[in-house]
Amino acid sequence: MKIAVLPGDGIGTEIVAEAIRVLDALDLSFEMETALVGGAAYEAHGHPLPEATLKLAKEADAVLFGAVGDWKYDKLDRPLRPEQAILGLRKNLGLFANFRPAICYEQLVGASSLKPELIAGLDILIIRELTGDIYFGQPRGRRTAVDGHFPGAEEAFDTMRYSRPEVERIARVAFEAARKRSKRVTSVDKANVLETFQFWKDIVTEVHKDYPDIELDHMYVDNAAMQLVKAPKKFDVIVTGNMFGDILSDEAAMLTGSIGMLPSASLNSSNQGLYEPSHGSAPDIAGKGVANPLATILSAAMMLRFSLNQAEAADRIESAVKHVLASGLRTGDIWSEGTKRVGTREMGDAVVAAI
Amino acid sequence: MKIAVLPGDGIGTEIVAEAIRVLDALDLSFEMETALVGGAAYEAHGHPLPEATLKLAKEADAVLFGAVGDWKYDKLDRPLRPEQAILGLRKNLGLFANFRPAICYEQLVGASSLKPELIAGLDILIIRELTGDIYFGQPRGRRTAVDGHFPGAEEAFDTMRYSRPEVERIARVAFEAARKRSKRVTSVDKANVLETFQFWKDIVTEVHKDYPDIELDHMYVDNAAMQLVKAPKKFDVIVTGNMFGDILSDEAAMLTGSIGMLPSASLNSSNQGLYEPSHGSAPDIAGKGVANPLATILSAAMMLRFSLNQAEAADRIESAVKHVLASGLRTGDIWSEGTKRVGTREMGDAVVAAI
Ligand SMILES: CC(C)[C@H](C(=O)O)[C@@H](O)C(=O)O
Ligand SMILES: CC(C)[C@H](C(=O)O)[C@@H](O)C(=O)O
Repeated sequence: MKIAVLPGDGIGTEIVAEAIRVLDALDLSFEMETALVGGAAYEAHGHPLPEATLKLAKEADAVLFGAVGDWKYDKLDRPLRPEQAILGLRKNLGLFANFRPAICYEQLVGASSLKPELIAGLDILIIRELTGDIYFGQPRGRRTAVDGHFPGAEEAFDTMRYSRPEVERIARVAFEAARKRSKRVTSVDKANVLETFQFWKDIVTEVHKDYPDIELDHMYVDNAAMQLVKAPKKFDVIVTGNMFGDILSDEAAMLTGSIGMLPSASLNSSNQGLYEPSHGSAPDIAGKGVANPLATILSAAMMLRFSLNQAEAADRIESAVKHVLASGLRTGDIWSEGTKRVGTREMGDAVVAAI
Repeated sequence: MKIAVLPGDGIGTEIVAEAIRVLDALDLSFEMETALVGGAAYEAHGHPLPEATLKLAKEADAVLFGAVGDWKYDKLDRPLRPEQAILGLRKNLGLFANFRPAICYEQLVGASSLKPELIAGLDILIIRELTGDIYFGQPRGRRTAVDGHFPGAEEAFDTMRYSRPEVERIARVAFEAARKRSKRVTSVDKANVLETFQFWKDIVTEVHKDYPDIELDHMYVDNAAMQLVKAPKKFDVIVTGNMFGDILSDEAAMLTGSIGMLPSASLNSSNQGLYEPSHGSAPDIAGKGVANPLATILSAAMMLRFSLNQAEAADRIESAVKHVLASGLRTGDIWSEGTKRVGTREMGDAVVAAI
């Protein structure tokens, strides 16, 4: 088994280092190989996703990813910007199924913007389609408008699209995931406006016939954005497209108040996967040793479970994290009165010790 | 001056009736004419936006709109569903500028999901472009995929697009609005992924040169969805496209906890406008006399200010609403211990009395 380790930019290197120490502590046998990605790769090789990095990722069973991006790359042409690396990895590895849990840990209820009774015990799984939709649809670009409100004016455009097999496979992923949970799926669309999402809704409804044990409901994306704020605990599994999933998964993550704790997994049809924290590269605190490594450590646990067939080792990491939280250690992002503030390294140490 | 009154479906008729009583109480001289829209129009005339209704709306200086929609129309073909009426009105009247205030009234802080300190005093203005983007872009439909992940498969697609003049005019609306407020605009885009929104960002930046007194920043839509939850009061004016605006304006409205209080205005370039509450038709409570009419009454105030040049009358309505809230009257949606629960009619009575 081989893991491609892509720490990336900002706090990426610091948090991935802790995840690796945790993996090492498990005494399993797999190979790890590190490569540059994002801004770091651009600086060294002139491209955010160099050929060698992509090759390594493709050959590995799993990719452990830190974070990419920094304001200093904002002025680069789009194809050279750090975030293109992540889009390129998703596309080239066919990582169509993004798992974004939004969990509120008991000890961290107070970190949420929401009133405790609304957020305590939250455990949502957002399944976002990750290789289709308006992210990759062609054609796109700039041109002269031939119709619309201002024919003759300069315009820019993108294409939203989903094909039947793309919707079918992500729907199956969602129904299968729900089977292992409370057996409820909410499919989020905008079928009242978009052809693409009327099609999405129709297909999810069809696929649902194969899962009579699962309860399915449909919700418009604007309503979902509201219901997440009003009563997040009413959701269990949410399945949606790439664009809506981008927005709703971040909204849900922030509702927990502890985005520094939330892992993610992006899988293809052979269970090869990319694992990364839900948060970003946080250039403002990079290099200071204060970033929370737990989302990355928990991403490594997801990696063990989903791609490396080591569910027991995954359990050990997750228990260790719970133990460390219970012991009162906190990085700055989740610190509160009465708990002990620690840095990235100390938090990693504590998880290693708990394992 | 002429007002087209389109009560629509569900609670629409009840809440619009109270807004009309409030308008009558002001003793101004304008003509009002009522017409069917949405499901009600479909039942009577087989179309959610009959020709006569559209004609009336076009000829009027302003449209006072209730709400449309009911689950029972879910099975109709898309062009016949109630919400097509609202899309048709926006398109045919050219209502490109949607004003969606998200205000948290002092007395209603407790109704929010958020902790009081995060929401008290909230006063955001979301300006959503309303006639462009993926809502109206052509082509759209179903076809056989010629490329993508599954060439040969059935697919559905839509076109996102913005032309230069469309972005310019909504940017100007936002900067002008910010001038009357705290002089800050956040433009929300997804320039890291979409051509349309890189174009949007470029043009907003250009137009900004004409407004050196206004502070402009840019934020990705996923981050905006998070920051609204984390620290909503950091925003003042938000300007964004039709699709992102749909999601973010509803999220922001729900953050206040009192969506039953939030009006909206949709204007064209001659200040003709459509005014409607931010909430929907609530078929579950329709006909029971319990709906909150205040969002509609406040929409009538916006109508007086923006389209009918009666700012003073608008002020009178807004003061009356504040007075009624201060007196402790509440409809069910905003009721809390220690306040007096009233129905739709009594709430209307109280506002009329306060005027
Ligand atoms: C960086 C960006 C392209 C990316 C996305 O929009 O998918 C990010 O927001 C995410 O959710 O992983
Ligand atoms: C009913 C629907 C078409 C509409 C929209 O998406 O614009 C609604 O959600 C709104 O925000 O007014």
